[in-house]
Amino acid sequence: MNQDYIVPDNWCIIEEGFEKDRVMQSESLFSLGNGAMGQRANFEEDYSGKTFQGSYIGGVYYPDKTKVGWWKNGYPEYFAKVLNAPSWIGIRVKINGEELDLNTCKSVRNFKRVLNMKEGVYTRSFVATLPSGMEIQVNVTRFLSLQYDEVGVIRYEVTPLSEKATITFESYLDSSIENHDTNWEEKFWNTLNVKQVGNRGFIVAETKKTAFRVCTFMENRLEVNGVVSNIQKVNQKENYIGFVYETSAEKNQTAQFEKYAGYVTSFNHPKEKLIEETEQLLLKITALGFNELLKKQKEDWAEVWQMADITIEGDVKAQQAIRFNIFQLNQTYSGKDARLNIGPKGFTGEKYGGSTYWDTEAYCLPFYMATKNAEVARNLLKYRYDQLGKAIENAEKLGFKNGAALYPMVTMNGEECHNEWEITFEEIHRNGAIAFAIYNYVRYTNDFAYVPEMGLEVLIGIARFWHQRATFSKDKNKYVILGVTGPNEYENNINNNFYTNYIAQWCIKYAKECLDKVKISYSNDFERVWKKTNLSENEIEQWLAVAENMYYPYSEELNIYLQQDGFLDKELITVAELDKKERPINQHWSWDRILRSPYIKQADTLQGFYFFEDHFTKEELARHYDFYEPFTVHESSLSPCVHSILAASLGRMEHAYTFYLRTSRLDLDDYNKEVHEGLHITSMAGTWMSIVEGFGGLRMRNGMLHLNPQIPSQWKSYSFKVNFRGQILKVSVSPKETKLSLEGISLQLSINGKEVIVNDELTIKN
Amino acid sequence: MNQDYIVPDNWCIIEEGFEKDRVMQSESLFSLGNGAMGQRANFEEDYSGKTFQGSYIGGVYYPDKTKVGWWKNGYPEYFAKVLNAPSWIGIRVKINGEELDLNTCKSVRNFKRVLNMKEGVYTRSFVATLPSGMEIQVNVTRFLSLQYDEVGVIRYEVTPLSEKATITFESYLDSSIENHDTNWEEKFWNTLNVKQVGNRGFIVAETKKTAFRVCTFMENRLEVNGVVSNIQKVNQKENYIGFVYETSAEKNQTAQFEKYAGYVTSFNHPKEKLIEETEQLLLKITALGFNELLKKQKEDWAEVWQMADITIEGDVKAQQAIRFNIFQLNQTYSGKDARLNIGPKGFTGEKYGGSTYWDTEAYCLPFYMATKNAEVARNLLKYRYDQLGKAIENAEKLGFKNGAALYPMVTMNGEECHNEWEITFEEIHRNGAIAFAIYNYVRYTNDFAYVPEMGLEVLIGIARFWHQRATFSKDKNKYVILGVTGPNEYENNINNNFYTNYIAQWCIKYAKECLDKVKISYSNDFERVWKKTNLSENEIEQWLAVAENMYYPYSEELNIYLQQDGFLDKELITVAELDKKERPINQHWSWDRILRSPYIKQADTLQGFYFFEDHFTKEELARHYDFYEPFTVHESSLSPCVHSILAASLGRMEHAYTFYLRTSRLDLDDYNKEVHEGLHITSMAGTWMSIVEGFGGLRMRNGMLHLNPQIPSQWKSYSFKVNFRGQILKVSVSPKETKLSLEGISLQLSINGKEVIVNDELTIKN
Repeated sequence: MNQDYIVPDNWCIIEEGFEKDRVMQSESLFSLGNGAMGQRANFEEDYSGKTFQGSYIGGVYYPDKTKVGWWKNGYPEYFAKVLNAPSWIGIRVKINGEELDLNTCKSVRNFKRVLNMKEGVYTRSFVATLPSGMEIQVNVTRFLSLQYDEVGVIRYEVTPLSEKATITFESYLDSSIENHDTNWEEKFWNTLNVKQVGNRGFIVAETKKTAFRVCTFMENRLEVNGVVSNIQKVNQKENYIGFVYETSAEKNQTAQFEKYAGYVTSFNHPKEKLIEETEQLLLKITALGFNELLKKQKEDWAEVWQMADITIEGDVKAQQAIRFNIFQLNQTYSGKDARLNIGPKGFTGEKYGGSTYWDTEAYCLPFYMATKNAEVARNLLKYRYDQLGKAIENAEKLGFKNGAALYPMVTMNGEECHNEWEITFEEIHRNGAIAFAIYNYVRYTNDFAYVPEMGLEVLIGIARFWHQRATFSKDKNKYVILGVTGPNEYENNINNNFYTNYIAQWCIKYAKECLDKVKISYSNDFERVWKKTNLSENEIEQWLAVAENMYYPYSEELNIYLQQDGFLDKELITVAELDKKERPINQHWSWDRILRSPYIKQADTLQGFYFFEDHFTKEELARHYDFYEPFTVHESSLSPCVHSILAASLGRMEHAYTFYLRTSRLDLDDYNKEVHEGLHITSMAGTWMSIVEGFGGLRMRNGMLHLNPQIPSQWKSYSFKVNFRGQILKVSVSPKETKLSLEGISLQLSINGKEVIVNDELTIKN
Repeated sequence: MNQDYIVPDNWCIIEEGFEKDRVMQSESLFSLGNGAMGQRANFEEDYSGKTFQGSYIGGVYYPDKTKVGWWKNGYPEYFAKVLNAPSWIGIRVKINGEELDLNTCKSVRNFKRVLNMKEGVYTRSFVATLPSGMEIQVNVTRFLSLQYDEVGVIRYEVTPLSEKATITFESYLDSSIENHDTNWEEKFWNTLNVKQVGNRGFIVAETKKTAFRVCTFMENRLEVNGVVSNIQKVNQKENYIGFVYETSAEKNQTAQFEKYAGYVTSFNHPKEKLIEETEQLLLKITALGFNELLKKQKEDWAEVWQMADITIEGDVKAQQAIRFNIFQLNQTYSGKDARLNIGPKGFTGEKYGGSTYWDTEAYCLPFYMATKNAEVARNLLKYRYDQLGKAIENAEKLGFKNGAALYPMVTMNGEECHNEWEITFEEIHRNGAIAFAIYNYVRYTNDFAYVPEMGLEVLIGIARFWHQRATFSKDKNKYVILGVTGPNEYENNINNNFYTNYIAQWCIKYAKECLDKVKISYSNDFERVWKKTNLSENEIEQWLAVAENMYYPYSEELNIYLQQDGFLDKELITVAELDKKERPINQHWSWDRILRSPYIKQADTLQGFYFFEDHFTKEELARHYDFYEPFTVHESSLSPCVHSILAASLGRMEHAYTFYLRTSRLDLDDYNKEVHEGLHITSMAGTWMSIVEGFGGLRMRNGMLHLNPQIPSQWKSYSFKVNFRGQILKVSVSPKETKLSLEGISLQLSINGKEVIVNDELTIKN
């Protein structure tokens, strides 16, 4: 563990005491988001110490010209970057003309940050002694409205503690911002218009190249003892507008400054009408006022928790951690908008610029399926359906034909935007996860209608890709897939990666299965798709020839599938035998050494066993787990969760719990020493799976929920809920018993291998 | 063939007619060099059309900050760049105040460039009609002195043809130059001093970071009809000094302008004394004058040709081509200075910035061994010996220990300066070529003393590397070498590349053989090296365990060694079956497609058969040639020569001749459409080998020269010379007979399998 300053609490993330060295970490940990926009926990007032400023808008990106040492044919021209958007939070504070800056204060006492996850509200309070000796109390409340997802609200309260003081607030918008993460140190925004209308300020700025237009706006209100102050002065510059308010407050009297601000963008509004639309919005917002908006915020978050909460008794850190994970997932993606997706760092940082990775399908989908309405998961699938054309173009760039689709490794708008050949061109298993997500969605929701409507075309494009990508080895008399990178990115350009070959044949078979089913039950859709895709029986036969004659590397001696051809040629020294000083190996070893080592970054063969559990026996799983886990260094945030689930399914609860801890407090305890760059959002969904699928043993089999609950010995009890086809099942597990409670009519399910019917409540002894 | 404007001629490279589109190609083809400096065939007078300016100084480089999309541990911080050095050739010419610029002339007639390779002199002449209608005749002669290798000489003659004219020459030096090839568009030079002393001009400039200091200098002389003009005006700027001369010439009277210029550098002189040393040099040079320097130049080149010439009768293009190759090799590297080496583009362009590749050892050494004194080849070996410390550091960066040495893929000063992981970290076979060069040198020169003196330490470092780099496969019960790139760079991160594994075991065995020999015959050296390298019998035993149990991928069915594990899993479609539109594949296919294809960029397994010919039977060679050549796309300039030699040794003279044509006129006919970037110098040595080792069948076996001459049916005869241990053997081959002539006392050799003794001349019927 690398840090432990976060105070354990069931519902809140709490920091006590002001430490300059922690500012950037806390800026990440206390980030706010509402699915449409996000804001790092930067201070409103000026801060001259080290900080990483970040405001982000969902779907607004920049195609940054890539930086590549050695160009390869087929590389994309750009890498999409999550954009640091114009700043809306700034409130410069002066006391008797002296600036408040926590970096230069004589002392900062009672500093406390609280991220109240139950209510979706972030507060900060402290007592500061300014260089002059003036002492003030500051309390700040901030939230991003779930209801009005273009709006952030700040209440900034200053109370002089030493004596009466003149207090100046300069509330501003600033579009002169830059990205930390830029390849060529370019600015990404052009400011088009800086404007004051009455007590409202606007900056209209547009992203270069992509021409997303954003109106950043504010309206403020300063009140002391019932008296409201007007704007005293306007500071307007090329990229800046600031409204200066001044008041005086007696000792112990509070000046209360409120700011209603945020973004109205061309992503959702006509480009030419942004200011008008903003004015409409502000009318509504300011009419409601701070307290009403806050009340609504609490209600909305209560609704989220009503469905998504997981409780853990007897382990406050575990409780805090799982709620933090659930909270962040909900801050990142609401599922309202099929154009959006789940970036690996959400709205908490710039890294992993492009928004969408295979993380979404492989790790995030189950969380959103089980804690939201089916519409949300459907939107995640629709996102890929909408980008099928680009996936086909992407495949064409690499020499594939006839509608074969290769989904990008990283993308914002469907175009590939990553360029390392070993990833971009070779980590093609991502295509498999996208097909698997369709299967997983249909299996869970029973919404097969998605397949004829949209999914089938995606499955056809993917099947075509695998058919063309596999080649026939005369030597093996089998189809092989050469030159790939599997989920374990510590191997590059390998042949016959078991996971890739396996999911490739599965994709083809599943596409064929869906074609048959659609042909029978949705004949109109079938004809439409058949025509549109120019499919033929002959082509399908060719697909199946590949699927049915796929080669898998296998060791007869060890009775296991090999991660790839030649895996047993490696020096098979386990991770436990490695010198600790050389860990993590990605920081200590050169790339060739990592590549020729047996070390596994994240589940690879075992990812296949996770997805296709029912294709293998428990003995097979145990054999593969016992062989591969000892070579796994878990240097991806996506690794521990899958291992936790597999360990639990093998009844190895101590292992499962160890991996659970590692995944759930990854950011809170900053295991990887990088939380200042932002949070690991997509792996948080893996944490959720560790409890629900791991400890809870939730599975879908034959259209029925299966549970097999276990509980870590460290816990008294835990509970989770799943939305299963419109009914909500709560599962509460203690060492002695499992209690099932249903919000709904009736649910037949299997628990510990026995079928039961839950109508209301049902308790089963373990 | 892509261009054919070069006029066939036995001794000269000739261009006739002025074509703006050919300027950049001709700038490469007519380049001059003297082993210490080089100059592209840029015009002296201003030219506003497309041009690629280049002046280069041997050993002067810039460590340009690398551009890498994704950093890997162990990457070098910089990529050494061949530097475009301050310009010394510039002579701005005005006729009655009107500038001469071939890009804007009304017409350019009788334009002719001649690179006289026999004499090492480049001339250019034309009749230009200026925009005003004024017609002038221009004749320019330029050479880089072999004798005074800091000096270039220009005679620039202008003759008004229409009427009497005032002619102005502004002869200048310019240090405001830039590199085309710069990663971050930085300037590489700081100008320290711009100075006039009498009729001499100097610019002292220093490279950033490396602090090479260079004094670029000039002295000029203008004469018309016996009257010498003085400097009329000096134009001096921050990075520029120009001397203006003015004269008038009658119609048909010639104004003769001479410029003596070049570089005196801190590479060879004390930093503080550059101007003084330059003044001394200029005293000497100007005392000799143009005609004397030119005479000396012809003599010096005559001496080069005396040893290095190859004649071909009956095929003027082949004759021109082989002389062009020999000429360029001599322009690039004279062997006088062990700090210099042979850059892939020599002094003709900036590409392949770092100077030294494995090309030197694998392709260039035989040429310099056979056409120069042994000292020259020894200097090439010493270059690597001098850099052994850096090679050990390089290996340490990648995790190797205990004095293991990995020579860099690309280097200027011994440090690695290339960073693609698949090349930098994995194309480790380069180490093998460096050991092989020692073996090859000793075998040819019999200078075994080099081994105890220097080579042994290099061999020990290399043996240590291979010992540590190989790992033991329990599965195969053999040592394997995983994760490499072989000479065929169209495969990356492969396992058990036959060539690499083979040369690795050979390196170890050769190191052991040398150790044994040195122990017996050079016991002092043995003790010194044994101590210095901290060697032990035990370590040597471990090396041998690797060498003796090395694994080689082999197909029992085909009876061939496989290029790497799994090669037979590929779709084995021959190059002949490929769509011509998709060639060259490196311009049409994405990298993953190239990697999983069977296509071979340059000899790989066959490179092993070339080096270790005597380890295999002719039948084995034929089998491997027949298997691999059909998959070879020859997209490296180093590919055709090796195939030409192997084809000749199999008696397949038509194949051999086809490959010979491809290698010998690669640049003259611009096969790869890139000659404007510079010439392919290192592959020119391969061309020489194609004749001497290919057609001539020259081999070293048991300390004796072997010949097996054949002649392409297209030729009447050919001859070459080799310097063998101080005696010079000329081999003249016609379809009927081979004539051997010796400059020396007596030579025993084998021809067509029979031993003969040559004292003077000997003719053998074929």
